[in-house]
Amino acid sequence: MTERFQRRGRLRKAPENFVDEGLASDITGKGLNEERRDFLRRSFLAASAGMAAASSLATAAAPEGDPAILKLPEHSTTLGKPVVTNPYGQPSRHETALLRRESPGLTRVSAASVSFAPLQGLFGIITPSGLHFERHHQGWHDIDPTQHRLMINGLVKTPKVYTMDDLMRLPTVSRMHFIECGANTAMEWGNVAVPSVQYTHGMLSCSEFTGVPLSMLLDDCGFERKVAKFILAEGADGSGMTRTIPIERALDDVFVAWGMNGEMLRPENGYPLRLIVPGVQGVSWVKWLRRIEVGDQPWGSKDESIHYIDLMPDGLHRQYTSIQECKSVITTPSGGQVLLDKGFYNITGLAWSGRGKIKRVDVSVDGGKNWKTARLEGPVLNKCLTRFNLDWVWDGKPAVLQSRAIDETGYVQPKLNELRAVRGTRSIYHNNAIQSWLVAESGEVSNVQVY
Amino acid sequence: MTERFQRRGRLRKAPENFVDEGLASDITGKGLNEERRDFLRRSFLAASAGMAAASSLATAAAPEGDPAILKLPEHSTTLGKPVVTNPYGQPSRHETALLRRESPGLTRVSAASVSFAPLQGLFGIITPSGLHFERHHQGWHDIDPTQHRLMINGLVKTPKVYTMDDLMRLPTVSRMHFIECGANTAMEWGNVAVPSVQYTHGMLSCSEFTGVPLSMLLDDCGFERKVAKFILAEGADGSGMTRTIPIERALDDVFVAWGMNGEMLRPENGYPLRLIVPGVQGVSWVKWLRRIEVGDQPWGSKDESIHYIDLMPDGLHRQYTSIQECKSVITTPSGGQVLLDKGFYNITGLAWSGRGKIKRVDVSVDGGKNWKTARLEGPVLNKCLTRFNLDWVWDGKPAVLQSRAIDETGYVQPKLNELRAVRGTRSIYHNNAIQSWLVAESGEVSNVQVY
Repeated sequence: MTERFQRRGRLRKAPENFVDEGLASDITGKGLNEERRDFLRRSFLAASAGMAAASSLATAAAPEGDPAILKLPEHSTTLGKPVVTNPYGQPSRHETALLRRESPGLTRVSAASVSFAPLQGLFGIITPSGLHFERHHQGWHDIDPTQHRLMINGLVKTPKVYTMDDLMRLPTVSRMHFIECGANTAMEWGNVAVPSVQYTHGMLSCSEFTGVPLSMLLDDCGFERKVAKFILAEGADGSGMTRTIPIERALDDVFVAWGMNGEMLRPENGYPLRLIVPGVQGVSWVKWLRRIEVGDQPWGSKDESIHYIDLMPDGLHRQYTSIQECKSVITTPSGGQVLLDKGFYNITGLAWSGRGKIKRVDVSVDGGKNWKTARLEGPVLNKCLTRFNLDWVWDGKPAVLQSRAIDETGYVQPKLNELRAVRGTRSIYHNNAIQSWLVAESGEVSNVQVY
Repeated sequence: MTERFQRRGRLRKAPENFVDEGLASDITGKGLNEERRDFLRRSFLAASAGMAAASSLATAAAPEGDPAILKLPEHSTTLGKPVVTNPYGQPSRHETALLRRESPGLTRVSAASVSFAPLQGLFGIITPSGLHFERHHQGWHDIDPTQHRLMINGLVKTPKVYTMDDLMRLPTVSRMHFIECGANTAMEWGNVAVPSVQYTHGMLSCSEFTGVPLSMLLDDCGFERKVAKFILAEGADGSGMTRTIPIERALDDVFVAWGMNGEMLRPENGYPLRLIVPGVQGVSWVKWLRRIEVGDQPWGSKDESIHYIDLMPDGLHRQYTSIQECKSVITTPSGGQVLLDKGFYNITGLAWSGRGKIKRVDVSVDGGKNWKTARLEGPVLNKCLTRFNLDWVWDGKPAVLQSRAIDETGYVQPKLNELRAVRGTRSIYHNNAIQSWLVAESGEVSNVQVY
């Protein structure tokens, strides 16, 4: 059905050497009495009959009379691996296809590039840290936390330098938030060459972050409340990454984090310290954070003057766009996946808004003519991914799947032509248009633009 | 301060070759004008002075006149590693001490043993999947999902066998729940030999799980509503793990999961399929799930007759105890950690209840004489871990730290003597008593029993 399922093989019939694991162990005994064995044998026959009759659920049947039916799989008869075989656990050897991937040729140097999260194979709202998207401007480093420092200076009474120990004994908060690169879905402004949701929307991840509120650190340094208007966040990598953030936002829900999904940040995600700026584009979530400066005007650094700006139809650049507006995408079925047969499918996807909680997600299977409201999985959190699901019975005819999110401010995710009417076609950043996936009669799903 | 901090070195003075990363890059220039450099240099002097004066925050100062102050760290001047250096990311090389660990000698065979999650170093409520605790009865296997089947039989109209493909196209739910082994904190019934929270409470983890409601599968097979009273869940490993679950519970919030924290289950946690039984002890969350049987009476299998039963003071065994009652534990500071100096600390820990949401957590620093209400981090979810935090200024004198959770039913976590009055001292399972940590004048934290 989906890429995920394809990896498991396109099962239309039973695999060779098929053994029904549920049944076999009981048939062979293991101390069960004869009566029970007979019962289970009868159950299996009924199950096989049921399978043949089942239309909505294609189940795999054992080859008739195959003696293999009495053979237990090896894992049901042998001693398995001991605990702490992996003191730090790893995914199954059968899951090696689900990886973050670079889009070849997107940038000139892989150290200043992007790796995309494989959204098509992810569940729920938490992104596994091993599959969190990457965007580096001069590569990543694994910084020694005992050597790392955070300095707070500028318009403060007492500039201070904090060690990791200093920070980690302070009052902490833990919050789940999405992070999306401002350039996510950038290619969609102009074309449909991007084949899969991993590359159209994969600069998106969501984690539970833990750290200390920035407001607490600014208070600790006695920042000049009357004149402070902005802060500058600076990273310790070679790219000299610096971003201006208005003081109101900095004092609101911004925090300085060391924890991500229960453990220390991963090196690619800013270990040992990064700024969390909920709802704002990823570039402001400065990684390997080493300095916060308090000032009275924006800095206009290279990363806010040349990059991460929006080229508008009138030729002017819009600067300091930062909030990631309400957006959603169907992750299954999505581009590159194949529906193996008509029938029931669970349409699933993600919705998010930089302005608060998701209120509703509508799904269309006819390119936006008709909409149904999807189920939202809980918890529905502020500036966090929300998972949606909708039942769908595919009739085998071409279908165009779309999702449309609405956030708690009432903002409705725009159609591509609505967005283009305002922003033109020369933008790179901040594309939050409705995404369309075409399901062909063959079952193949592809990226299309529907106006 | 904590074990986490100890790993970073017991920093009382600046490390050798100290370079303040936040400052150095600006002092050395990179296009900054002289005025700004001067300002930053003054800021640093102020910062150093501030540090000397700071009592609550011990900060590391640069050696006076050290020319190293002008030297940038290597990671600020070099090209870092490219994206997808690790297509599936890994923790920092500096975090190798935080691992799940086996308690030597706890069981005779490592394949039928336990590995404990390092709660003392975890943040928030999500357990990183790589550090999820393990409890196997005959070792773990990495089962090929294309070969795996789930059978539903017994008192059903149409017994069925499902492939993973069959299951994964059905309507799915995603929910965050804790899982706790019924034997967690077992050793505390009798003694205080267990040194750390990893070993006292580390058979506890929490994840976002994704799967299909069991009620939907039972409906699909047409289970006999009038006579069905129980289900039996059976695993595919060699231990023949089987657990009885009342039908009311099975139809309530139980689901059959393949997803854990956004990706497929890990092999040690039941890949590709395990039962999720929210609020119930871990043994019922059958891993490598291969069969669900519907019946009209409990099965009394070995794992519910000989194991996971409570030996009561009158010599009788209490069977089919399953709900994990309301419980909490302080994870930092905790046994084995060391407070390096008096002053401010963030007391943090976890609370949970198998009966619903956590309503309140109180913390005592004097062995239960006085209590303060801790801050609960959101989201506070049903049958899920809840993170709590409390500000504490340690005066350097001996202190006994305790936490006491109250759930939404009004149930209050009991003291150890209250629990013993009912259950005696010969139990193994289901110890949810208040945990006490003694902070000695030396700053060393140890496990003590307070009555």
